[in-house]
Parts: sequence; C-alpha cells; structure tokens
Amino acid sequence: MSISPKIFIDCNRAKANLKAVFEDVRFSDITFRPHFKTHQSIGAGMWFRNAGIKKITVSSLPMAEYFAAGGWNDILIALPLNINHIAQYDILASKIKLHLLVDNNEVLSLALSGIKNPVSIYLKADVGYGRAGWPAENTKEFLKAIQLISQNDIHSFSGILSHFGNTYGAKSAEDIIDINLSSITRLVVLKEHIETQTGKQCPISIGDTPSLPHYTPGMLKNISELRPGNFVYYDMMQVALGTCNINQVAAALEADILSLYHDRNEVLVHAGAVHLSKEICLMPDGKPGFGALVRLYEDSIGEVIEGCFVDRLSQEHGILRVTPDFFKEFHVGDSIGILPVHSCLMVAAAGSHFQNL
Amino acid sequence: MSISPKIFIDCNRAKANLKAVFEDVRFSDITFRPHFKTHQSIGAGMWFRNAGIKKITVSSLPMAEYFAAGGWNDILIALPLNINHIAQYDILASKIKLHLLVDNNEVLSLALSGIKNPVSIYLKADVGYGRAGWPAENTKEFLKAIQLISQNDIHSFSGILSHFGNTYGAKSAEDIIDINLSSITRLVVLKEHIETQTGKQCPISIGDTPSLPHYTPGMLKNISELRPGNFVYYDMMQVALGTCNINQVAAALEADILSLYHDRNEVLVHAGAVHLSKEICLMPDGKPGFGALVRLYEDSIGEVIEGCFVDRLSQEHGILRVTPDFFKEFHVGDSIGILPVHSCLMVAAAGSHFQNL
Repeated sequence: MSISPKIFIDCNRAKANLKAVFEDVRFSDITFRPHFKTHQSIGAGMWFRNAGIKKITVSSLPMAEYFAAGGWNDILIALPLNINHIAQYDILASKIKLHLLVDNNEVLSLALSGIKNPVSIYLKADVGYGRAGWPAENTKEFLKAIQLISQNDIHSFSGILSHFGNTYGAKSAEDIIDINLSSITRLVVLKEHIETQTGKQCPISIGDTPSLPHYTPGMLKNISELRPGNFVYYDMMQVALGTCNINQVAAALEADILSLYHDRNEVLVHAGAVHLSKEICLMPDGKPGFGALVRLYEDSIGEVIEGCFVDRLSQEHGILRVTPDFFKEFHVGDSIGILPVHSCLMVAAAGSHFQNL
Repeated sequence: MSISPKIFIDCNRAKANLKAVFEDVRFSDITFRPHFKTHQSIGAGMWFRNAGIKKITVSSLPMAEYFAAGGWNDILIALPLNINHIAQYDILASKIKLHLLVDNNEVLSLALSGIKNPVSIYLKADVGYGRAGWPAENTKEFLKAIQLISQNDIHSFSGILSHFGNTYGAKSAEDIIDINLSSITRLVVLKEHIETQTGKQCPISIGDTPSLPHYTPGMLKNISELRPGNFVYYDMMQVALGTCNINQVAAALEADILSLYHDRNEVLVHAGAVHLSKEICLMPDGKPGFGALVRLYEDSIGEVIEGCFVDRLSQEHGILRVTPDFFKEFHVGDSIGILPVHSCLMVAAAGSHFQNL
C-alpha cells in the first residue's frame, strides 16, 4: 500500500492534451521540442515519442542524464550552462546530441574550449521577461557569440531562443497576444540582422504554454521550434489564464481527508506545501487558492467538486474551504483529488524525483 | 563531484542554536519534544541526542519510520492521524512509543479499536490558528475523547496539544506575546476543566519557534512540553520575525552563478522554486524576497553579502538583485549561499528526502 498523498495522473487526458496540440493545423510546419520538466518521467515521455516527438527540452543536467538513459538522443538543457559542469556536459555530449544555452560570452568561451565532444549552442535572447538572456537589441554580443562558435571546429550553432515567461502575468488573451507580437518582432529583427551579418541560418525557438491557443500562422511564420511543456498536464494557473478548461487538467494530488470542521466549512487533508508548493493563483470562485478539488476514479480524474478549493497550506497540512454539500458526500478517510496551481512544481516536489508512470 | 545546487549546513551554528535554547534557564523545567521536520536527518538528530533529547515530533508517517529506524523510540506524529494508515501505525507502535494526534472522535474510535499495539493520544486544541483541532472551549469533544481512551485497555492519553501557527503572521514581539498569553490561558482553562471532570492529569504541549524568545516563567507555569523545530537552522522568516539574527541561520542553498547582468544589477543562479520553495517574506532591505546571500566557506556560513537578495524564482532559475559591488567580488562559476525564507521547506524540497549529514 502506498502512503498518501501521491501524484495521480489521468493518462487519457494527458494524451488527449498532446494530441490536441500536436495535431493542430496551425503547427503543421513547426518542430516541437517539448519541455519535459513538467512530467520528469520516461513513462510520460513515451506518449510524446508515440506522437512523433524526437527532440526534447529539460531544465537541469540530472534531468538530461535521466532522459538520455531513457533513450532520448536530442536534448536541450534550457538553463544557461554552468561552467562548473563542463566535464558532465562532455560525457553527455559523447552519448547524445546535446544542446546548451548561453547568454554570456565568457561562459561560452570556456564551454567551447572545455567540452571536447560536439555540442550545439542556443543563444538566449531576452525580449521582455527580464529573467535570462541578452536583450535582443544587443546584437554585438550575439554576433560575438556566433563568431566564437564559428572559430571552433567541433561545436555548432542552434539558433536564438527566448522564453516569454511574462505571459504568466497576463490579464487577458489580448495581453498574451500583445506579448507575442512584440516579442516575436524583436526576435525576427535580431534573426535577420544575424543572417545578414553572418550569412548563417538563425532559427528561432520560443514556446510557453499560455501562448499556445493564441498563435496565428502570421506569428509563427519565422519560428522554427516551439518548446511548451506544461500542456501535457495543465494546471489551475493555466485554467486561470484561459489556456485550457478545468476538465483538461491531467495531474492531481491524491490526498486523504483527515478531519472535518463543519462549523467553519473547512476540511483538513494531508497535502501540504511539500507536495503542492506554495504557488498560488485565483480559483474559479474568484479567491486565491492552492488548488481545486475533483473526484478521483480508478484511473481517471472525475467531476470537479463545485465551490471547494485548497484555502491554506502549511508543510504537510492542507485546509480546504468547502460547501455544506461537501460534508454529505465526503468523510474522514476518503481520498480526493487536488488540481494543483502549478503541475510542474507538484511533480518536482513529489520527492522521488523522476517518478515512473 | 556533486551537482549544484545543494544544501549547505553550518553544523557549528546549528549546534550553537540548540545549545542556546536547551541551556536557557527559562526552560529548565520543560520537556522538549523538538520537531524534526526541519532537518529530516538522522545525522542532525544526533546533535539533539547529544544534548539530552529523547522525545521527538515529526510531521508524517514515513518520517516517523525513518527516525524509528535511526534509533528514536518516543515519537509523536503531529498531523491528525489518517485512518487509512492504521496498519502502518500498528507496526510502528510495536517497535517504539508512538504518539498520535486526534481532533475527531470518529477517527479516534476507529484508531483505538484498529491499532493493537499501545499508542498514546494527544488531543489537538485550536486556540486561534484555525488550522486543525477542536476549539479549546468545545470541552464536550475533549471529554468524550478522553472517555473513549479510558474505555480502552491498551492505549493512553498524552495530553492536549496546540500549535500557535498564527505567531508567523505577527507584526511585532508584542503580537507574539499577546498570542501566547491568550492561547495559553485558553489551554489552561481547558486543562483544569478536564482534570476536574476526569481526575486525570492533562499535560499541555505547545511550541513554535517564533515564541521561543518571548516565553516568561509565568507563561510556562502550566506547560509540560515544548515542540519547536525550526530553531536548529532558523531562516529568513525567523529573521524577519525577530526570533534570531541573520548570523544564526545555519542552513543555506549552495548555488552556482550562471550569468551576470550588469546593466540591470541582477545575477542568474541555479536555484529555483524546486529548491527554495515559493515561500516569500520581507528581506532586510524592506522588499520581499526569496532569500538573503552569504559567502560560504569550507564548512561554515560566512558574512552576509550586504544589500543582495533573491528577487525572483522560477522552476530552476533564481534572479538576484545585487549591488554594483557584487560584480567586483563574484564571477560566473562562483558559488554563493542563499539563506532561505523557510529552511524546513528547502530541506524537504532537496529531493533526496532524508539527507544525511
């Protein structure tokens, strides 16, 4: 018997989420390099492989090593590379086609000379998120980087890469579209400048999940590659952003009811910050919360439990705000499902790092 | 070579933190049952054992099993018990003196009849935090619980237990003192009522870390047991609450610098929400942040890096807000220490659940 709480995946929902994106005609000319940090699972990776995916993105070296061992042989580590891990990148590059990300030319020089097996370099461009990357208008650094890569006989250039993480702060679909239009324009100007100056092809790689429903053929005309990850499971943050509906969320935390507080319409479940993370967003009732509640069946996520949400979290305690009806249906010892605010963090927090499905 | 980021513990600071509390004359008549969820480590547990501690608190069944295997034989699981885990509690109760927590008499009845090996029951009282427990004035439920325990020949009564988690929201030392005065008063009224009605001793167990500096002999007169945990490592939340000074924080995340952004006085480190959690609090510069920066030496945490903090976090990226001086001292590839907002969550998020020291 496995001890609650634990992660519950609705595989049919997840596969349907993949199918909806991968078979979308808008993306018929796009290469997908989906981000596997969301599921961190070789088992879930098989759904992507069966859908024809050959290239993937991960967020750390151990995750790259895990998926390489699982048979993936074209992997991008989408965190600017760590010069203390040159030896590990080199070993990995002897086994697979490894793509590394750079936004610093001192780091790039050290990596190009330190890594002996071929790697391919993406250059990170910042077009508004302000996390990592050179501002796209800083063409001098991009050109210098491409020159450094060209001077080297072993390594190659993959293109420019950006993450429009500011879509997560969008207040409306129009905001998401505006972020994409202005960000893509800046990337295309950079791409054209690089191609003119160097005579080399400069592919553009973008792709966050909130933007998926909003891409138009015009937006994607100059884009070579999309890297969304969250869309396999989605979560309440994506519901709040309008990316998906709540019945598409494919990952839940299965949590047992420990106690019921009728007088305050609250319920205690074993589900805390160590399982769900402290990420918070607006729930469908308009108030902030740490997750929505659903019924769980043997291998599927069932109906939403209307009007009931995770109100507060401490390390291992979760307090639900519920309706009086909740008490008619649920009792101590019953399991419920919690649709998390951020499925990637819930999966990462699950403890056994790379769980198998 | 271990891959960054990783947890860095200053053992000397941690031992000094324990010594300061355990040797405090205010606590000479108190039994400590410290909460081990903060460190989750048999190695760190030895510091407590060497200080004379024999009883401990944990927050989950797997954590209880881990410490029982490590030689601890008087353990309280301070999360209301899960009736789906009766069989596991029973096995554990055959090996150690196991204390369970209850705030529901339906659950209590099932546990008392289902568990065959002796366990001892704490009854949870809510005196203002509003998380778990019967309100202390709900004497009927407490008396019924004690009657249920008395009717059973195997199991015993440990006392009433409360957690004043609302001290974490305190704005001042006076707030913390007020919470303690009113909460303890309510518990003492309950204790006296139970003792009068049942003729049994009713010990009181309390103890959060923010209250530690504020206890007076008068407050503790009727208290039998204290259960703080965080004080072994402390963290930036405790610094913000005034519980400790920043030079007492004994746990850090060792993180490598990946990139430097001189134009915006920011720095990218490999340290994300999966390592630090998304817990946030006011930093010493008066702005919210996810951690303060320190220099790390071989086996000790060094000086604070003044004016520099973790400003933003995503899954694996940490963005530091830094001073221009930061760039004179630190370069790509250097490791820095991050004092976390919540050391318990950082330790839990470290992945390898129960790391050894």
